[in-house]
Amino acid sequence: MVKNFADKLVEAVKMKGSSICVGLDPRLDKIPKFLKMKAIEDGDKTPFGAAASAILEFNKGIIDAVKDLVPVVKPQIAFYEIFGHEGIRCYEETLKYAKLQGLLTIADAKRNDIGSTAEAYAQAFLGETVLFEGDEEVIMPAFDADAVTVTPYLGWDGIKPFIEECKKYGKGIFILDKTSNPSSSDLQDLEVMERDGAIEKKTGKALYEIVGHLIDSWGANDIGENGYSFVGAVVGATFPEQAKRLREIMPNAYFLVPGYGAQGGKASDVAVCFGGGSAGLGEKGLGAIVNNSRGITNAYEILGYDESKYAEAAREAVMKMKMDLAGVM
Amino acid sequence: MVKNFADKLVEAVKMKGSSICVGLDPRLDKIPKFLKMKAIEDGDKTPFGAAASAILEFNKGIIDAVKDLVPVVKPQIAFYEIFGHEGIRCYEETLKYAKLQGLLTIADAKRNDIGSTAEAYAQAFLGETVLFEGDEEVIMPAFDADAVTVTPYLGWDGIKPFIEECKKYGKGIFILDKTSNPSSSDLQDLEVMERDGAIEKKTGKALYEIVGHLIDSWGANDIGENGYSFVGAVVGATFPEQAKRLREIMPNAYFLVPGYGAQGGKASDVAVCFGGGSAGLGEKGLGAIVNNSRGITNAYEILGYDESKYAEAAREAVMKMKMDLAGVM
Repeated sequence: MVKNFADKLVEAVKMKGSSICVGLDPRLDKIPKFLKMKAIEDGDKTPFGAAASAILEFNKGIIDAVKDLVPVVKPQIAFYEIFGHEGIRCYEETLKYAKLQGLLTIADAKRNDIGSTAEAYAQAFLGETVLFEGDEEVIMPAFDADAVTVTPYLGWDGIKPFIEECKKYGKGIFILDKTSNPSSSDLQDLEVMERDGAIEKKTGKALYEIVGHLIDSWGANDIGENGYSFVGAVVGATFPEQAKRLREIMPNAYFLVPGYGAQGGKASDVAVCFGGGSAGLGEKGLGAIVNNSRGITNAYEILGYDESKYAEAAREAVMKMKMDLAGVM
Repeated sequence: MVKNFADKLVEAVKMKGSSICVGLDPRLDKIPKFLKMKAIEDGDKTPFGAAASAILEFNKGIIDAVKDLVPVVKPQIAFYEIFGHEGIRCYEETLKYAKLQGLLTIADAKRNDIGSTAEAYAQAFLGETVLFEGDEEVIMPAFDADAVTVTPYLGWDGIKPFIEECKKYGKGIFILDKTSNPSSSDLQDLEVMERDGAIEKKTGKALYEIVGHLIDSWGANDIGENGYSFVGAVVGATFPEQAKRLREIMPNAYFLVPGYGAQGGKASDVAVCFGGGSAGLGEKGLGAIVNNSRGITNAYEILGYDESKYAEAAREAVMKMKMDLAGVM
């Protein structure tokens, strides 16, 4: 039987003693020069190839430095797509390396589309691809992440194909609900009416709450041993009041929480995201993984280290974040 | 001065005498066998590499067959991502080849994220990437599509970085509004309230209408000579009533219309999507481009041709579609 992704996540969180997710969102101008020079010295690279190689080395350094402290890493694919197919090669290698080092991986890709296309995305990120070798059919994974982020705007059609791959391969999804950016209110906070036939009634609910109820129902059939579903939610640390409400609406959803650190979210803000599951709101330390990208990968700048010490600085930043989160648990 | 993408599109539509967009959404099981064998004979390919090469040849055949009949092609990136970085190489080459053959290209990627990440997506698909060569900075495009599809769920933050690249490079975006899939109603048809301070009032508007108003305002500063903005909208052919309403709400938006053909949308359904612009609702044939993917790329099956004639069949399907659309104009 395939293990529920949510149970894998709980296990990893308990083993590492932390709910930190390291965001691998590399920016070339923050990659230490010695790594860029090495990429060029290593041979016949195009500028795209050299950039991708430098970033891969950088990522490996970060992963090695934090792998005993965190359960999961989350590379944001936009920062790889700007290097075209070489960037995607680096993305694949990063996921593969993280997995080899015992980390779970979340492909932050915010994908979705109509059903038949969502199926292709789901296969790409979570499942396997049907290929050929001569006359023979061969099946191999493309990205093989443990989970992927997904947008809700197309409704159930766009979610279902992902859920099918999750079931088959023990993978997970995190559906965008209340995002961490300032203008997330443009759509997500709109107040929604309910209609019962010809009768309209006010729900008093915002769109993000409706999406929360949808996520809760979409994940209801796939709850693991710890009371969490492999259908999780993205809930920004920058809106603690809304996060608290969503924790009530989705007791079985694991939250992926962006917005801590550089975007302004504090440990006290993310505290409300924890809870849920079979232990209810009582057991803290489960129910949410808190992402930090720049605060960890650029820690050498923030903490005033030489860039050659970027990995040590990342480790220090993770330990500080761990203490910061522990303070509010 | 950079030419507005909407004007480029109008020019191309007039030159080709058609508003058809050919969707390049390849499925390996529909790629003719002789192309797969050729890919293997051509040398040391991995299964992913061989698949990507076969698809690239297939796409080139389609492009050659339809390039004098249509203004634009739209490769859906999910169908390339399932082949990992080799698929993305094929995606880049497909965009490049289409451009060389005088076609406009829409990267159907439905991207979006918070501002700083949306910036990376916008650079990847529409703009340029900053790289290095030794100590020198070099700047090159990654995908260099003419336009990209974008999701609205994160609000203005996620749209603005795309608009900046559009301005700089003469590119366009199509923002998802009312999508063609059955469950698009889950979120998009929800009825929304308006709040004026403490006073609530019913708008009587659905979310897709609110999104329409947002798209209209987001594109208002970037209207070209023909009265269309480079900020367009995705409006499904499968919901003609809603499309009609959206045509009124967004008089300056060019519509990208999926759902014709395989998904059930008819020529009479898409007719309401045309109009708008400086010529108003009178001038038909402008204001919308109608996508057809499977109906063209799999035409050899549908029309009963041998698979070696897939390109001829695609041409015939485009000509039939052209007549079908002309019948309702």
